[in-house]
Amino acid sequence: MKLKNLVGERFKERPADCVIDSHALTIRGGYIKYMANGIYSLYPPMKRITRKIEEIIREEMDAIGGQEVLFPVVLPGSLWEESGRFESVGEELLRFQDRNSSRMVLGMTHEEAAVHLVREYGQSYAKYPFMIYQIQTKFRDEARPRAGLIRVREFTMKDAYSFHTSQEDLEKYYDECYHAYYRIFQRVGVPEVIAVKSDSGMMGGSVSHEYMLLADSGEDSIVLCDACGYRANMEAAENSVENAGGLEAAALEKVYTPHCKTIEEVVNYLGVPVEYSCKAVMYQKNANDDYVIVFLRGDYEVNETKLTNLLQEKVHPAEITPESGLVAGFTGPYHMNGSYTVLYDSSLRGIEYLTCGANEENYHYKGLNLSRDCGVTEYVDVSKIKTGGICPCCGRKTIQVKRGIEVGNIFQLGTKYSKTMNMTYTDADGSVKYPVMGCYGIGVGRLAASVCEVRHDANGPVWPITIAPWQVHLCCMRADQETCKSAADKLYSALSAAGIEVIYDDRDVSAGTMFADADLLGVPVRVIVGPKNLKNNQIELVSRDKRISRLVDIEAAVPEIQSVIKELFAEIKYPAGALG
Amino acid sequence: MKLKNLVGERFKERPADCVIDSHALTIRGGYIKYMANGIYSLYPPMKRITRKIEEIIREEMDAIGGQEVLFPVVLPGSLWEESGRFESVGEELLRFQDRNSSRMVLGMTHEEAAVHLVREYGQSYAKYPFMIYQIQTKFRDEARPRAGLIRVREFTMKDAYSFHTSQEDLEKYYDECYHAYYRIFQRVGVPEVIAVKSDSGMMGGSVSHEYMLLADSGEDSIVLCDACGYRANMEAAENSVENAGGLEAAALEKVYTPHCKTIEEVVNYLGVPVEYSCKAVMYQKNANDDYVIVFLRGDYEVNETKLTNLLQEKVHPAEITPESGLVAGFTGPYHMNGSYTVLYDSSLRGIEYLTCGANEENYHYKGLNLSRDCGVTEYVDVSKIKTGGICPCCGRKTIQVKRGIEVGNIFQLGTKYSKTMNMTYTDADGSVKYPVMGCYGIGVGRLAASVCEVRHDANGPVWPITIAPWQVHLCCMRADQETCKSAADKLYSALSAAGIEVIYDDRDVSAGTMFADADLLGVPVRVIVGPKNLKNNQIELVSRDKRISRLVDIEAAVPEIQSVIKELFAEIKYPAGALG
Repeated sequence: MKLKNLVGERFKERPADCVIDSHALTIRGGYIKYMANGIYSLYPPMKRITRKIEEIIREEMDAIGGQEVLFPVVLPGSLWEESGRFESVGEELLRFQDRNSSRMVLGMTHEEAAVHLVREYGQSYAKYPFMIYQIQTKFRDEARPRAGLIRVREFTMKDAYSFHTSQEDLEKYYDECYHAYYRIFQRVGVPEVIAVKSDSGMMGGSVSHEYMLLADSGEDSIVLCDACGYRANMEAAENSVENAGGLEAAALEKVYTPHCKTIEEVVNYLGVPVEYSCKAVMYQKNANDDYVIVFLRGDYEVNETKLTNLLQEKVHPAEITPESGLVAGFTGPYHMNGSYTVLYDSSLRGIEYLTCGANEENYHYKGLNLSRDCGVTEYVDVSKIKTGGICPCCGRKTIQVKRGIEVGNIFQLGTKYSKTMNMTYTDADGSVKYPVMGCYGIGVGRLAASVCEVRHDANGPVWPITIAPWQVHLCCMRADQETCKSAADKLYSALSAAGIEVIYDDRDVSAGTMFADADLLGVPVRVIVGPKNLKNNQIELVSRDKRISRLVDIEAAVPEIQSVIKELFAEIKYPAGALG
Repeated sequence: MKLKNLVGERFKERPADCVIDSHALTIRGGYIKYMANGIYSLYPPMKRITRKIEEIIREEMDAIGGQEVLFPVVLPGSLWEESGRFESVGEELLRFQDRNSSRMVLGMTHEEAAVHLVREYGQSYAKYPFMIYQIQTKFRDEARPRAGLIRVREFTMKDAYSFHTSQEDLEKYYDECYHAYYRIFQRVGVPEVIAVKSDSGMMGGSVSHEYMLLADSGEDSIVLCDACGYRANMEAAENSVENAGGLEAAALEKVYTPHCKTIEEVVNYLGVPVEYSCKAVMYQKNANDDYVIVFLRGDYEVNETKLTNLLQEKVHPAEITPESGLVAGFTGPYHMNGSYTVLYDSSLRGIEYLTCGANEENYHYKGLNLSRDCGVTEYVDVSKIKTGGICPCCGRKTIQVKRGIEVGNIFQLGTKYSKTMNMTYTDADGSVKYPVMGCYGIGVGRLAASVCEVRHDANGPVWPITIAPWQVHLCCMRADQETCKSAADKLYSALSAAGIEVIYDDRDVSAGTMFADADLLGVPVRVIVGPKNLKNNQIELVSRDKRISRLVDIEAAVPEIQSVIKELFAEIKYPAGALG
């Protein structure tokens, strides 16, 4: 199509509210339009990109026996009551009433709908295994949407659900899907996506993986070990800390620490290493506001997902009231007043000489020994691992913590939904059993934005050929000159006739404007028809990533362009190493 | 794929709650699954059908310069406040609040979203005309969903919006789209769809057309004239009635009509022709409950859409209270007590001798002359035209009233949305103007169900090849016999390798079960591999519509099947006559 007809506007200025590059570029390039908090419309270029991504996903899902279905966006609340999630999921589940006052929800995930669809179908063992998937709009009432299409409230998602008669069969299929996901990300042009072990959160089940695209702007922390290949998200990575040796036990001593409220202030004031300090992080349970006190080594942080999973209930940062008996800034394990849930993080294990709060304004203890003075025998893992930490897999101090964007996830759900929703099948021996489920998600818009995030330069996205809105961006440098215009027109017709997707810029604008727009559209192959080269009967062929730049005889242009496109497609392959 | 793996169940019994055949067949055939009132999930065969329909629509929209975009399902209420529709649309617009108490709606149509997307883009006349469309989920909180996918609350719709700098340009494009719609319906396999003039309803604007698929089960009435080709929906068809001649004027006479409350009872009791009676139909305005009395000829019915359009406000059937001054069953134009909105339908024009209510229990008048006795000079058109009525176009008494299903609609919106939402452009002369809009909708699921409604037999749907879930249904009649099974397996591989979409039934079930399932899936080409014909090295090739039935040498099977598929595709053409 012609660029002058393309709906949407491109502009130079980076919008002030865009923190990450992909957000700025997708706004500046006329890909998306903000409508409300976390809600966007897609302009034609982004619609073209997402359709290509959807088609790749569809092919890979079909290749592992998936059958495409469609679930409703608006679901009856009664269905979510069956699974118990109508109550258990937080405010991100948007609940409302229809004109007849029936309770409804906007689907944010479709386990219930999947079970509803196949509950009758799956009554005999002979029907298993099977997998159904959809590509459909979802709504999740996020508290803090951000970063353009990366974290929105409404989004298009591919969600798949598999059903099995045994855990073994689920694991076998899970492994197939695990690899299909790698193929999807590679075909989309981001082979560097890695799968990490994850925490299953509200989905239920045990084993799950997140697919992470490493990016400094990502909001997820990923734990990697280059030595053994261990990969996990922060919640799933056990933090073990080596505390053997060091300061020897001594008598407990109360010391004056005026105005030292943070652990940094205390250790600086007292001149003790932070590795020998014990800090308190205080929470309250959402259900009843009971206090939960976590003690951990002064140089570690609490991971709240680990804490929530341990407690099996949600918590929020504590509000310290006078009635609580707690002394903010001076809380310590020794002689606490009041009854709280008290947890000792394993980062404290083995330290014989700790500095900690004295539960008294302006006082700390030195020389605390948790087993001697507080009788502590049990430690839990609720802290975040750090770069240089001990790998939970190989035991070496090789952990690296990096940032990433989650672009997909897969879960072994077990029988959580089949049990609560009473989906059963009759086995070969006549016994009645619950099927075992897996579920598998990819957010389409987020994936598109994430590719932009890791494939762009200062001027715009550099789309991989497999998902680029067009394959060729044809520039007519002098639309006002008959020779140039007619040569470009002819090439446009020839390329279109050859089945190549071309965006054709025949506007009478400056080269600067023309190339700025082309950079923002990020089309992989650029063909420039200009008066100078035309004199030699040539056109210029350059790739958006600048690896290719050559002059081509105009007669050979179409086959040459076809061969460059073919090369670019051929580069999108499945590197064996990535199938880790 | 293999039928034994296809998710969904097929069964014989017609569900009790299915009134129309397509509803029963799409349930019985494992196409759709009821989840809540007017909300369905789609099983794989229906998902395959709707994807093919969507692809046809997409191609035809692209062919008239459409650019695909995506609007959100969840829209901010503030956007609908701009157009005024947040207030003006009834309960079918589902309104709710998000977690931050912002007012939101579920999109039931996207004029506001379309204007929002292009309001900045379309600031110069040079950008016009352009058309954007999406294929997306919509929600309309229907009071009475019915008939499976024909009338639902949640549905997939293609909605397109065009923008122009003049009414003339809109009309030109409207005409292009008018013909694109014919191509779509023809390609989907229902060339008998006709466009009828329609009432624009809540969309605003003036000229609009509905595309109607004639079907006795349709809920719309369509007015057709075979003589001149006039086509309109009931609301848009002017009802003119010939009343010249007949009974002559006479003196007004009050007569005793005990217990005669309906017009049929009155004319039977008095022995006068119903064509000389005047009945009252009473409404109240929704806004203030004021009474609206419509007088019309006894043998006609009020069309409430015409009435609403005339009054420019909504009404409901009246509740006659003692305070109203109205006498139910005996209301007439002569000496009415009380002040009401009184309308005289044009079906009464020219009658000099009418029988009507006397506004007194058990009494009617004979001989009423509306101009003489009531001074009536103005008549309105609020009645429904009847078969045999006068064609508003050619004036002959050739009108036929038929039933149809609305499968699409197109509207000339004018500047309703650009004005209310303040979308302007600067014209070549520097003046600031409002663009003129058109909008164009097709419900995908309803179209699929409508095709089934007019293309089925007692055993199941007869899908046109262009939208059939598969092209070939391969039956292995004796999966338990090695020769038969291996011949069928081989053919399955060969057909799949040839790029043909095959559903393969290799279950060890009876021929009855196998063919019943095949009939329910409605695949156009059936290939039967059975022991008897295999002895002669032959297979049987039949079409679902029974026009084709032949034996084919197994070596020639693939090319023969390919050629039958090609023939079936070739039959789906654009008959010149349909482009009315």
